[in-house]
This record gives sequence, structure tokens and C-alpha cells, in this order.
Amino acid sequence: MNSIQLSKKIGGKIEIRAKKRLTKKSLPVLYTPGVADVSRKIAKNKKLSFQYTIRKNAIAIISDGSAVLGLGNIGPEGALPVMEGKALLFKELGGVDAFPIVLKTQDVLEIVKIVEALSPSFGGINLEDISAPRCFEIEKQLKSRLEIPVFHDDQHGTAIVVLAGLINSLKVIKKDIKEIKIVISGAGAAGIAIAKLLFKYGAKNIIMSDSRGVIHKKRPSGMNKAKEEILSVTNPENIKGTLKKALRGADIFIGVSAPKLLDKHDIRKMNLDPVVFSMSNPVPEITPEEAYKGGAKIIATGSSEYPNQINNALVFPGIFRGALDNRIANISDEHKIKAAKSLAALIKKPICGKIIPAVMDRRAVKAVARVFKI
Amino acid sequence: MNSIQLSKKIGGKIEIRAKKRLTKKSLPVLYTPGVADVSRKIAKNKKLSFQYTIRKNAIAIISDGSAVLGLGNIGPEGALPVMEGKALLFKELGGVDAFPIVLKTQDVLEIVKIVEALSPSFGGINLEDISAPRCFEIEKQLKSRLEIPVFHDDQHGTAIVVLAGLINSLKVIKKDIKEIKIVISGAGAAGIAIAKLLFKYGAKNIIMSDSRGVIHKKRPSGMNKAKEEILSVTNPENIKGTLKKALRGADIFIGVSAPKLLDKHDIRKMNLDPVVFSMSNPVPEITPEEAYKGGAKIIATGSSEYPNQINNALVFPGIFRGALDNRIANISDEHKIKAAKSLAALIKKPICGKIIPAVMDRRAVKAVARVFKI
Repeated sequence: MNSIQLSKKIGGKIEIRAKKRLTKKSLPVLYTPGVADVSRKIAKNKKLSFQYTIRKNAIAIISDGSAVLGLGNIGPEGALPVMEGKALLFKELGGVDAFPIVLKTQDVLEIVKIVEALSPSFGGINLEDISAPRCFEIEKQLKSRLEIPVFHDDQHGTAIVVLAGLINSLKVIKKDIKEIKIVISGAGAAGIAIAKLLFKYGAKNIIMSDSRGVIHKKRPSGMNKAKEEILSVTNPENIKGTLKKALRGADIFIGVSAPKLLDKHDIRKMNLDPVVFSMSNPVPEITPEEAYKGGAKIIATGSSEYPNQINNALVFPGIFRGALDNRIANISDEHKIKAAKSLAALIKKPICGKIIPAVMDRRAVKAVARVFKI
Repeated sequence: MNSIQLSKKIGGKIEIRAKKRLTKKSLPVLYTPGVADVSRKIAKNKKLSFQYTIRKNAIAIISDGSAVLGLGNIGPEGALPVMEGKALLFKELGGVDAFPIVLKTQDVLEIVKIVEALSPSFGGINLEDISAPRCFEIEKQLKSRLEIPVFHDDQHGTAIVVLAGLINSLKVIKKDIKEIKIVISGAGAAGIAIAKLLFKYGAKNIIMSDSRGVIHKKRPSGMNKAKEEILSVTNPENIKGTLKKALRGADIFIGVSAPKLLDKHDIRKMNLDPVVFSMSNPVPEITPEEAYKGGAKIIATGSSEYPNQINNALVFPGIFRGALDNRIANISDEHKIKAAKSLAALIKKPICGKIIPAVMDRRAVKAVARVFKI
């Protein structure tokens, strides 16, 4: 059965279930009059809502449908099946009760206000498929306003799993994060977050490129606040030019951008033992076949059809499992780096064809969640 | 186990469940890349979201915590256990997937905007425990803005079950709706909605009373827009004075107000075969024991400890079951009256001690839902 047939048959992919059966006897305990005691207790001490209600295990998956998969700005209704699928993964992989809330507004401040207003129902907020650079402001505002963890998975889930893959890649090719040149193609949510996290992890020479080429100081067009800010941690020598030019002598290519940007000649100009993470979906920046022809040593993609699938599903269930269980209000860069290390460590002896666990590797959730233990 | 102990043990009373297990094989169907086909299809025709997503069976229970049970304005966190309990009832009784969303704002226009913005995730909106007269404006605005059913249960759920009880009461005492005098104590959400629905059903002489006595034209204080408007369908002779005074010669008393307002002497002054619906909770306007002493013929309360429990749970699961299954965008007065008649008809031979089905009577959902069939 394909996805459309399945949706037609079952409607939504998730449902609500009662944890206790309703009987004549349980009714007054589950609902009135008994529930008034619980409400009274929580009204006196709101923090108890994290123990006595769904907040203990429930998060919202928030999207405005502005940047959905490879489909772009398709709006809230179109985004809903994706968010449902994500909710299913949250429960099946992490035991997290995630409810998808898609919004009929793309105004940054309105989204912030709405999410803040509905936050008392939830123990955490997962932002999803919100376009850059709007997503940065929304996340920043929410992180400062809410007392529950806010996590934009397209940014940080991707950055964590990329860092995990990079940690193991560097073991294989025996290079030091401090000495390598990394080129990132794509300055959207994922690209910006990857650059920030790799810098935090110790990378000294990151070059970012977007559809207008390398991002450098005083570039006359195609800039925004996020791209301006990323210059403080990237492009230390302020080089200019095309993505292809930037790739010369690079050790690592990380693509979160657009299909078919590179060919084997570009890989040939990279440094010894090139590492190619080509994650544009469904069509990558360069196919693994082509990258191998160019001499790539390690190749990772976003697809399950090749080895080394870089998939956020290795990360987001564990992030919220850990944050909820330990009542973490702020998911920090330290958490993210630890999560990447912990995930990478699941591969005892990394080899070219195995730098990251498989998506359905059940150890991933625990590996990520345990970094939140206090 | 009491309610607090139970909440401590299980946290929330509801959870999210996957309808399909996640496996290596199902992953690409439930999530990427397959889900993109579903999203693309819905983006082209948004109405398909009602077939292909959770909208088919999911509603939001929205509350701002401003008028919770008998507890008053306890805020969103305090309200959450009640909304969870309600969500549990929705699923267990009506098979409806209801998710509780409690809001950290009590601004009418903000609430309207928020609910409108999140409506693309849902097939219906159940408003709950929002104080009067704010609830009237919120419901009115949402009904005009949304393409999904909006139902304020404290108003209409109560009105429907009261009308059902009244229909059977009138059969027992052999009186005609057009000829009786009805006194309603309480001009909040429930009282106003009851008055409107009974008028629509044919009642000609309804008197409403609040904490300042009978509501009449040009009453100098304690009025609001809803009370002004209700005068067009109540108090035809524009009488003034106290609740007790209004009760003289009345056939029916309906209390949705405050504890201990009446005693047996007040019931004695009512017409032959007085009917007393004393539904203030947990303490009624007059206890059944006291009302019997005053000669009440039929007595109903909000409590399960006496016969004739007037409980919304007989109504709301069926309302949304029917509205969702038949894609009803507007729950009309005709639907409400039909639902009351259908519910009343479940009692083949009404007697004083049995004018309404028991709360857990599984026939109630179907009886209410079927009035939406097109």
C-alpha cells in the first residue's frame, strides 16, 4: 500500500488513547468530581502540571507549512501529513506523545504569540519545516519566553546527526577537526545550524555557500541577518567565489541545499580522502556514484538507498525523551555536542560504509537521551 | 485510588498512539519519502485534509481556564486535568480523538485568532470552561471564521441535555411547553444557552434570574450584552424582583447558578407537579431531600448520587461523532433540538425517577450522532 492509499484508508496516522478505561467506577476519578482536587493542587503550584498531566510526556510539533520537505511553502493542511508522520516516529521511537499543530499564519510574531499561548498544554515544543531565516527568530523568541524546551529539528536535529557522522568520519580518515576545511552548501535552517555546531565543536575553517556562492563579508546581495551573523564563525579568510572554487582543497563537503550542484571533477579537487555528505532530498547535490568516481572516501546521503543515511530520526526522539525525563528547559549546545558524541560512539569501529547507526537502531534514543541526565 | 494518586502515577490520562507500527518497511510509507505524495495532493485540494489526515477524527478542546468546574478562574495549568478527562470521555464514549489545548491568555480576540490559526489541524473545536459573557463572543467569532464545527459544551451540551430531560418531564406531568412558566437561575454560559434553546423549542414564558434577581428591561446594574439580548426571548411581561418571587406559580425550575438558594417553601409556591432541575455543582440550589419536602414531582441534579443526572457527557461525544462523520460545519439549533428529542426518546416510558438515560448509557452517542446524518 502506498502513502496515499494508506491515508485514504486510515485517515490520520496517530490517534488519542485513554490510559485508563472509562467505567462507572473510574468516571468520578478520571473526571468530575475527583479531577477538581488535581486542578486545585496544580492551580496552587503550576509546576505540578509537569507531573500530574500530559505535560509530563507531551510535546507539540509546530509548523506553518512554509518549508515542507522538498515541497516548499505548501501551507498548513499540506504540511499536516508530514507532522503526523513525525508524531508517529516520536511515539514509536522515543515514547513521546507528540501532537501536530499546523498554523494558518506565517507571521513571525503571531507564531511566537500562539505557541507561547498554547505552551501550558505541553512539556516541549518541536518546531518543524518553518522557512529560514524566519525560523531563527521564532526559535530565539520562544526559547527566551518559554519555560519548556524549544527545538527546531530541521536545524539542530540535522546538525547533531551531521556532527555524529563527522566525528566518525574523522576517525576513519585520521584528521583533526581543528585542521580541516569544511564547505557547507546551503545557508537555510540546516546549513546555519550545522556551521554553528561544528564551530562550537572546534572547526576552525568552515566556508558556507548558498545559491549566490560563498558567503563573505560585504557580499552585495542575497544576505540576511542569519547569514551576516554566521560570518563570525565561518570564512575566516573572507574568501569569495563559487561553491566549486571553495571546494578546492576542502576535506569535507556538507550539502543541505539543492540537487545536482557538483560532479566528479569537483570532488577530485578536494583534499586527500574527501568526505562527502550530500543530503539534499530527494535528489542530492551529487550522487554517491558520481562522488565515488571523483574519489570520495566516505559518502553519506539523506536516502535509505545508500549506506550512511544522515537522518534526524536518530536524534529528535532521544532529544525530547531526555529533555522531558529530566525537565530540561533549555537544550544547549553542550547537550547537542554530547548527543552527537554519544550517537557516534554507538559505532565501535567506524569504517567508510558505516559512520552512523541505522535509522531504526533502537540504541539511538537512549544514547541521545542519556546526555540530559542531571 | 483517588484522582491525585492516579495523576501522580500515570501523569496524563491520555496518550498518542500510532495507528500503524513503525518498521523498516512502513517507515517510507508513513513518513518520507512517501508522505510527500499525500502532502502534495492535499496542498492542491485542502478539503482532502478531512479525509487523509487526523482532521477526519480529531478535535481540539480549547480552554483558557477562566471558569473551571466549580473552581472559577484557575488558569490554564489548573484547567488541564479537566480537559484531559474530557478528552478521555470523548474517545471512550464517542471514538473522537480530542486533544486538550489550554491557553495562557484570556483576551477574547487573541483566543479567536489563536484558535483560527491552529484550526487546520482539527476537524472541530470544542470550547470548554470559558467564562461568560466572553464565551459568547469567542464562539460567535469562531463560528463565522472557521469552516469546521465550533461547539461550546458548557452552553449547548448543557442546553441539549436539559431540553431532553424537560421533554420527558413534560410527558410525565402532562403539560405543554407552550403553556408553562420556566424559571432559570443563572445567566452564565449554561443559563443563557438553555433559555435560547427552550425558546426555540417553543417555551413562551421563561424568566431568567441571576445573583441580582430577575433580569428585566432597564435593570440598572449587573447587565451585559448577553443578558440584554436574552430579554428578547425571556420575561415577556417584564416582571421584576427576586428569584423566589419569580418562582411563584412556575412549573419548572432550572438551576445552573449557586448553592443553597432555595428551600421547601419556595417549591411549595410553584404550580402543581413542580419540576426541579437543581444542577449547581457540587452543591445544588436546593437538595433533592429539601425539594421533595416542598412537593417537587420530578427532581434532577448534576450529581451521580441521585436519580436523573443531567450530564453533558450524554451529549458532547455524540455531537462531534455526528458532526465529524458527516462533515457538518455548523451545529445549528435544529441539530440541538433534534439531539435532545433523540436522547429523550431513549426512555420509552419516562417516570419521575427516570427522565434521562444514565451517563454511561452507550446508546446516547448514537442517538445524538444520528441527527447529523445527511
